[in-house]
Amino acid sequence: MSKFWSEVVHGLTPYTPGEQVQMPGLIKLNTNENPYGPSPKALAAMQAALGDGLRKYSDPSNAVLKDAVAHRFGLRREQVFVGNSSDEVLAHTFHALLKHDLPLLSPDISYSFYPTYCSLYGIESVQVPLNARFEIDVEDYRQPCGAIILANPNAPTGIALTLAQIETLLADHPDQPVVIDEAYVDFGAQSAASLLGRYDNLLVIQTLSKSRSLAGLRVGFALGHPDLIAGLERVKNSFNCYPLGQVQQAGAVAALDDAAYMEQTARAIIASRTWLTTQMEELGFEVLPSQANFIFARHPQHDGAGLAAALRERAILVRHFKAARIDQFLRISIGTDEECASLVAALKHILI
Amino acid sequence: MSKFWSEVVHGLTPYTPGEQVQMPGLIKLNTNENPYGPSPKALAAMQAALGDGLRKYSDPSNAVLKDAVAHRFGLRREQVFVGNSSDEVLAHTFHALLKHDLPLLSPDISYSFYPTYCSLYGIESVQVPLNARFEIDVEDYRQPCGAIILANPNAPTGIALTLAQIETLLADHPDQPVVIDEAYVDFGAQSAASLLGRYDNLLVIQTLSKSRSLAGLRVGFALGHPDLIAGLERVKNSFNCYPLGQVQQAGAVAALDDAAYMEQTARAIIASRTWLTTQMEELGFEVLPSQANFIFARHPQHDGAGLAAALRERAILVRHFKAARIDQFLRISIGTDEECASLVAALKHILI
Repeated sequence: MSKFWSEVVHGLTPYTPGEQVQMPGLIKLNTNENPYGPSPKALAAMQAALGDGLRKYSDPSNAVLKDAVAHRFGLRREQVFVGNSSDEVLAHTFHALLKHDLPLLSPDISYSFYPTYCSLYGIESVQVPLNARFEIDVEDYRQPCGAIILANPNAPTGIALTLAQIETLLADHPDQPVVIDEAYVDFGAQSAASLLGRYDNLLVIQTLSKSRSLAGLRVGFALGHPDLIAGLERVKNSFNCYPLGQVQQAGAVAALDDAAYMEQTARAIIASRTWLTTQMEELGFEVLPSQANFIFARHPQHDGAGLAAALRERAILVRHFKAARIDQFLRISIGTDEECASLVAALKHILI
Repeated sequence: MSKFWSEVVHGLTPYTPGEQVQMPGLIKLNTNENPYGPSPKALAAMQAALGDGLRKYSDPSNAVLKDAVAHRFGLRREQVFVGNSSDEVLAHTFHALLKHDLPLLSPDISYSFYPTYCSLYGIESVQVPLNARFEIDVEDYRQPCGAIILANPNAPTGIALTLAQIETLLADHPDQPVVIDEAYVDFGAQSAASLLGRYDNLLVIQTLSKSRSLAGLRVGFALGHPDLIAGLERVKNSFNCYPLGQVQQAGAVAALDDAAYMEQTARAIIASRTWLTTQMEELGFEVLPSQANFIFARHPQHDGAGLAAALRERAILVRHFKAARIDQFLRISIGTDEECASLVAALKHILI
């Protein structure tokens, strides 16, 4: 508390990120990082961007990066917005597109940063409960609202909507922006980007942190009708004209261009997820059907917080949320096969 | 205009950055970039940060970078805030610390992003006119206000306040945050950081874009009482927990540590500024006394916009602002000695 703070600061409950612990031998399955490194082509491009040129500002319109994103999705530059991670893109989206007279709808269990953005920008929101199977039911969103945001696949459940379900949502709300946060889409779900030609109310947000193994670079983007993008640009250019430096842009362009590498590592992660899910089920866990690079699982006889603590003692970090309905679950990022095997071995010891 | 925009978007007039033109042979003196490249040690540190580690999130508390800043200024980590450029730090500062019941005071001629931040966050502001010599007069700030922000040296004038004048401002307003934006301080002005122990209302903001030749990296920081920093952290962690990637942090730490390189290049720029000022005065220009890496000059017989256009035809970019009181001035970044000489030669041709 300080008399120097603006009023908004007093009411904020900042987002709590997963721990970034530095510890040798630690198996870190708590923040959904990719177990494989970034594309070697991305690393080479960043290498080439290091030099005297860093004395200059980067291109504030981010034209080269926008074109790389547009090319990947068969869109035009005017349909692309880029930012310093999808968290920044989300923040600008909440500010620019989601504050209206009627409340914002989002799932009661989803990315826990959404309520924080609502506090930051004074956005009224209504949380729509997931159904008993922890799924988003698009029928439940048939109510008056100013806008909608949801993650697909949802986090931390990992469960994905079909494209048909998303299209229902878009058609049900032609006058409201509908934001689909696709941070995890490359691990098995379908991107709504293919619907952009038909729905001017759709904004799709993606990140290079997960499937492109660049959490440490901070690049995200949004795809949508040029009018939505123009709204985001206005806010961005009233906040920070150059959110992406030259190394970031060079690395992001090369990573987007190297689709083969991304698809190969995503396939490896999907295979590990299948193996880990089977192993966990054999240990008695209920594992929600995941299309993401993590699984969400609970054990009928073992407390979630207790399991997370026991794993931590064995130098394995997973994420546990102290939140209603999901406090018996663990969110476990898919690691390398070796890391997944170590997790299973540790759980066997704990569950005895 | 779009029905999908939040209301705030309709009223925004985004900041217009100086042009980032890519053109061979162009002499670019329009965005106050450093003519010398970054510290070789900073480049080496960034090189070392490129690798598989980029798959992981960076430390959200930015401890290593904060410690490097704290070390440089003889402060504690709790007195340091870091962000993705000083523009982002400024944006969070406006949001977290400058919105109060009474208006924000800032100079009528200063960094033109300030009024944009006020629109973005709905902050009422009063612009206090510079005096007839284009100086900030701290006596003029003796009026009821919620907060104060000014640049020292001021931009685009280049004129600096003394430490005693800043101390008067701080002592006059013990209950209001006073923000000193020191983007250009290393080119001859005195940092207010030395006053931090005595004034809990002081926030100092600096950037690595100018004196540390890293405009393309995007790193800035703020120094202040832990309560002010805590307010900024709350907003930052409600916006984007990881605004700085690993390459940015590694480069910034090394650049801050290499004080000798910064001081050497700053001395070279100051020497060029002295030479250019003399030359311009010999051509009949009035040049304001600059403590920054640019000069602000007007010619009694030649229109500012016309001169900027004539220089542009000769592939020399300078900055011209279409704004009251200063529309006869040119803001000219200090380039290499060769670039400064080319500018003088071009002006001689134009003024004949």
